[in-house]
This record gives sequence, structure tokens and C-alpha cells, in this order.
Amino acid sequence: MKLISKRIYLDYNATAPLADTVQQWLASGALPFGNPSSVHSTGKKSKKLVNDTSAYLKSVFGLQSHALFYHSGATEGINNIVKGFCFQMLREKSEFHFVSFSTDHSCVFAQKEHVELLGGSFHLLGVDKDGHYNKDSVIKYINELSGSVLINFTLVNNETGVVWKLSDIESIKDQTEAKIHVDAVQLIGKTDCSFELSSSIDFYTFSGHKFGAMKGVGFTFANEASSSLFPLITGGGQQGNLRSGTENTLGIYSLKLALKEVLKNYQPEVLKFEKEFLEKSIQEKYGSRVHVVAVNAKRNYNTIYLIVSDVKIDIMLTAFDMAQIDVSSGSACSSGTVKASRVLLSMGYSEEEAKNSIRISLPYNTEKGQAKSYFAKIETVFDRFIL
Amino acid sequence: MKLISKRIYLDYNATAPLADTVQQWLASGALPFGNPSSVHSTGKKSKKLVNDTSAYLKSVFGLQSHALFYHSGATEGINNIVKGFCFQMLREKSEFHFVSFSTDHSCVFAQKEHVELLGGSFHLLGVDKDGHYNKDSVIKYINELSGSVLINFTLVNNETGVVWKLSDIESIKDQTEAKIHVDAVQLIGKTDCSFELSSSIDFYTFSGHKFGAMKGVGFTFANEASSSLFPLITGGGQQGNLRSGTENTLGIYSLKLALKEVLKNYQPEVLKFEKEFLEKSIQEKYGSRVHVVAVNAKRNYNTIYLIVSDVKIDIMLTAFDMAQIDVSSGSACSSGTVKASRVLLSMGYSEEEAKNSIRISLPYNTEKGQAKSYFAKIETVFDRFIL
Repeated sequence: MKLISKRIYLDYNATAPLADTVQQWLASGALPFGNPSSVHSTGKKSKKLVNDTSAYLKSVFGLQSHALFYHSGATEGINNIVKGFCFQMLREKSEFHFVSFSTDHSCVFAQKEHVELLGGSFHLLGVDKDGHYNKDSVIKYINELSGSVLINFTLVNNETGVVWKLSDIESIKDQTEAKIHVDAVQLIGKTDCSFELSSSIDFYTFSGHKFGAMKGVGFTFANEASSSLFPLITGGGQQGNLRSGTENTLGIYSLKLALKEVLKNYQPEVLKFEKEFLEKSIQEKYGSRVHVVAVNAKRNYNTIYLIVSDVKIDIMLTAFDMAQIDVSSGSACSSGTVKASRVLLSMGYSEEEAKNSIRISLPYNTEKGQAKSYFAKIETVFDRFIL
Repeated sequence: MKLISKRIYLDYNATAPLADTVQQWLASGALPFGNPSSVHSTGKKSKKLVNDTSAYLKSVFGLQSHALFYHSGATEGINNIVKGFCFQMLREKSEFHFVSFSTDHSCVFAQKEHVELLGGSFHLLGVDKDGHYNKDSVIKYINELSGSVLINFTLVNNETGVVWKLSDIESIKDQTEAKIHVDAVQLIGKTDCSFELSSSIDFYTFSGHKFGAMKGVGFTFANEASSSLFPLITGGGQQGNLRSGTENTLGIYSLKLALKEVLKNYQPEVLKFEKEFLEKSIQEKYGSRVHVVAVNAKRNYNTIYLIVSDVKIDIMLTAFDMAQIDVSSGSACSSGTVKASRVLLSMGYSEEEAKNSIRISLPYNTEKGQAKSYFAKIETVFDRFIL
């Protein structure tokens, strides 16, 4: 059980604690500080950490021929891809479209007005009640658009845990001319153990703090389609001009340390078993009042997304907090106030249902038998509200 | 003397070592990790650090009524201001102009094509050989433009150390309708001790790693003119929509710790004396071959910018590196390869002169008598190349 000052933290889709190795490294006092662009030895020490991390990430994800650039996290990374594409199309005076899905993260959804201001068309495709799209319809939709197309796919949904098949996305790539960006933020430590990605996909974006690296750092892989971007953050020309600004060396190296730790300790089958045990325990005891979202879909190994009927969700969240259990409702990024989940609404749930959601997201290193103790704690809250 | 593994680091304008208090805090193991947007206690702990830092920064800079938002550093911050302004003007269908100076940082200079793609005009104003502009000409220039105007002023130049008076900028604000952004990246620990800023200026941008905070974090103050921005990084709506994305809590709190340390230890008069001693020592011994840039201008307390005649600058930089002294040539942000400084060219120096520059930038906590030992080390290199 991941105990953080006696609390049980079950909000890993919002953010993860720093990996032990990152924490130890930060405490070691041997932190390089040079500017990686400096030509002197102090700068080169930093540059070496950046290069080491790049080699490691390319190897882990099997994307040796993709370019890799770092940024401040997925929100910036995805803004860079979408707006960078729009700027390049504007530069080329091409007609262009950005296609997204109604269940994408708010940083995708929020591109609409900018895309349109830049002269492009913004398209929002729907999903079914299980959070899935129809592959053939998407191919048909894209192929009917004239001009250049960029489309975003969310590999693992942050709210529902629904997983989209990379092979489907590859096949869309094969059958269209679209540039494809994959939001891979929720991939690591939440699905199976292999992180090998398809080299035919143009762009992938990751966020460090979702898997134990520091906040404020993320990375994007880009193949030759990077020539279809006019990068958003311009300046000193760092990172092959794909993203200017002094590289955040500590953050970048923390990506390598954290990912190594996940790869070393992650037992996907254990996580899957524990998550299913917890979900079943909840369903068996509270099934009449608690609905599991996307129950029939292919879902990841760490996320349980529940709709609780006839409950004041803000009071229930407070009760969880008082019981020292950290869970969330809706996307963390919009959870400063509790509001109906845009994702659930778009999956066909009612306003009431979309408000009453609880997301439990487990640590990648959940151990055998932990779900039982999680359930015992969760029961103390649910019993009060549901029974 | 700031010794980093026996090296003498004199490249503080490129980046600074982590402040001791930041390093100690990182080593303390008590680092909060929650997502500041989360409603549970773990998230609120992080949110508190962000709020504490904001209150502190507003107080130190005397900008209580400005909004404050965090980003990944000045390059992103300035991109946000300039492009955010352009997007808003495009949204309002207003004619607009972005005005900059030839000595501004490359992240200002690099905005040209984006500004023009967005339908605006990009203007580059010149400076004299001392790096100064003519205030009345600038006022006249702005007032002759039709439409909305954003202008950037670099308070302290990163290459030359030339300081522009805030009172001049205030007076330009008074006499024009322009929105004004001040690049204040090189302010802290390099000029006098007061960081009180003028509340009449619309925007100020700072970078953490220039004064001992972590890399990958910076901040921008914005007054009500923030309504003239349509922010660049959109998504979950964090930070009052001014900059979306999960806040980098550790980086943000490191801003407070580092700035407190500067305020506690900084003795501007000592720094000024030592810098002047070092500069004079160099001039007296090598004056016929070494020219001090902007020698007659108001300059800051830590930067000595030299042009060395008849020397292969890349070989001299290597010699400095071998002698374990970290200095730079031109802006760190473009110093992956040694190339003629755009700043020096724009000040009227020749291509040859603009290539042969050496920048020595001292730590804010330089102690009495240190310049003497710096000079002794620098002599070992200069003697070989110049005498």
C-alpha cells in the first residue's frame, strides 16, 4: 500500500509521487546545473544527461528513427503539435483540419478556437457508451475531408481507463493521408508491460509526472512529419528548433530514472488482478447504486470509474478526504470545482450521472492483496452514503 | 569563490547553480507531490505551496494588483505574451503591431514570422553603440502606428549587461497607448538590491534558473492588460486560464526559496566593486587588444562583455575550459556553436568583432577580494593568447 503520511493515495491518473530513484538522486547533491547549450564542461555535463535520456527513451519505446523533444508536459506538448501544425499549414497556405474525439483530454478539446482563428476546421468525433469509436467511419470521415488533416487519438483515457488499440490507429494511418498524434500520457504503468510503439505513427506525447518523474517535464516523439509543424515555442533554437528554451535537465533526467523504476518493478498481471478484485468487490456490495463506466470495453489495469446514483458527490468526496483516501471526480485538470464530466456526457450519460463520478486510479506497483485493504477503507465511506 | 568541482563558474547569465536552500529542500524528502488542481488534501498541500509562492513574489516585486502565472521559463513566457497578444488581436479583428529591439533575446527576435502569419506587423528598432535607444524616437514611432501595439523592453541585457531605466519605460507607457512587456530575466542579483517594479507596466517575465531556482520554471506578472491576451497554452484552464497544464509545484516553490536566498545574501555594492575591479584589471593589462562592450553605458553589476581582437575565439574558449573557468561567448541560447553575436552586430560592431566576444558573468554572492583570484585565473588564459 502506498502510504503518504498515512493517506491512501488512489489518484494516480491525476499525478504520481516522485519515484524513489528520482527522490534519491535529488537528495544526492550531485546535481548538474550547467546550461546544456553552453560549450564549456559544466554545460556539457548537463547535455550528457539530456542525451542519455533521449537514447534511453528511444530504446524503450522502439522509436529510434523518430526525433524526440522535451517540453513542460503534455498540455504544452499537445498545444505545440496542434498549433504547430496549424501554423505550418497557414505558412503553406494549405486547407487544413484538426480532428479530435469527444473523450480527449481538455488540452485537445481546448484547441478549437485557435484552430479556427488560424483558418482551419476543428472536428469533434463522438464515441459510443463504451468510449469506443468506429474505425471505418473515422477512415471514411477523414478521407472525405479536402486538405491536410491532423487527428488525435488518446491511447488510454485518463478518466475512463478505456484503451484504444494501437493496431487500429496504425490501420487508420495506412488508409488515410492524415498525420496522427497519439496522446500516450496514461500509458506507462497502467496497461501491459511492453511500451514498444508503432513507428508508423507520426507523433506521441508523454508527461513525466504521471509515472514518477518530476512535474513540469514531458516529451514528444516526432517522425519526419515534424516538417509539418512550425513549432509554437520559438527562440534560441534548442532541440533542433522543435522547442526552444533552456532544457530542464533535472526534469529530463528524472524521466529516465522514473521509467527505469517502472520497468523494474511493474507487474501488470498483479495490478490487473487487484484492480479487478477491487472493482468486483464494489460491484458485489453496491451494485444497485454503483455503475462501472465502460464495463464492457477494453480498459487499462489501474482505473475504476464509477457513477454513484443519488448522492451529493462533493460531500462524498469530502468524506473520502476525511477518511484519508485520495480519489477524484472527473478529470483532475478541471476538478478545482466538481462539475459534470464532459467525457461522460459525451458517452451518453445524463448530466446527473456525469456529475456523480468517482475515479479510483491505482499505483503501478500495487502489490498482491492490497485491493482487499483498499476495499476495506473504501467501504467505510460507501457504507455511509450508499447502504 | 563559487567552486563547483574545482571549476570557477563565471557564466551566471547563462544559468545559476541551484540555491543551497533549494538543494536542501529537495534533499529533505518532504516534497509534496499532489496535483494542485485536485480537491483532496494531497492536492491542497501542493496548492498551498503555489499560493505561498505567489503571495511572496507579489510582495517582493510590489505588484500586488497584477495577476501572476507560472510557466516553463522565459522563452515560453515571452512566446505566450507575444503570440497571446496576436491571437487576441486576431480574435478582435484589430490591426496590431509587435515592436522589439535588435538587442532583445532570441525568443523575442524569433517571433517575427508567427506575428506576420497572424496578420500583424513585426518591428525591430535599433540601438546605439552603447546598447541604448532614444526614448523620444520610440514614443514617436509607436504613436505613428495605427492599431494596437505591444512592445518589448529588455530591462537588463543578457549579453552586454546594459540596463534600461524602468522610469524611461514608464514614461513611454504614459505617453503611448502601447501594452508593454518587460523582459526582467536578468534582473535578480545583477543590479541594485531593490526589486520593486512599476505597477504601471503591463507585463514582466522572469526565469527561475537565472537566480538559483530550478530549470523549467518561470513566472509572468500581468495587469488588466491580460485581457489583451488569448493565452497560447490552452487546456484544463489552470491559473485562471492564463496558462493551462498541471503546475510544476517543486519548481514553483523553488522560486520562493531561491529568491529569499538572494535577498538574504546579496550585497550589490560588493558585487559592483569586484566586477569593476576585474574589468579594470583586464583593461589595464590587455587594453590594447581587449575592448569592453558598452563601456560608457549604465550597466549591471555582474557582467563583463569583452571583444578580443585577433584571436580564434573557439580556441580561446577551449583554453578557458581547460583552465577550468566557465565563461561564454554570445548568448548561451545560441552558443551550441560559436557564431557572430546578433546583439553586437546590431550595436554596430563588425562581423569579426561580433564573433570574438567573451562574456564573464559573476555570481550575485561574489565576496570581497574574489575578483583578484578570478583575474589571476583569467590571466593564465589571456597571457597565452594576447601578450
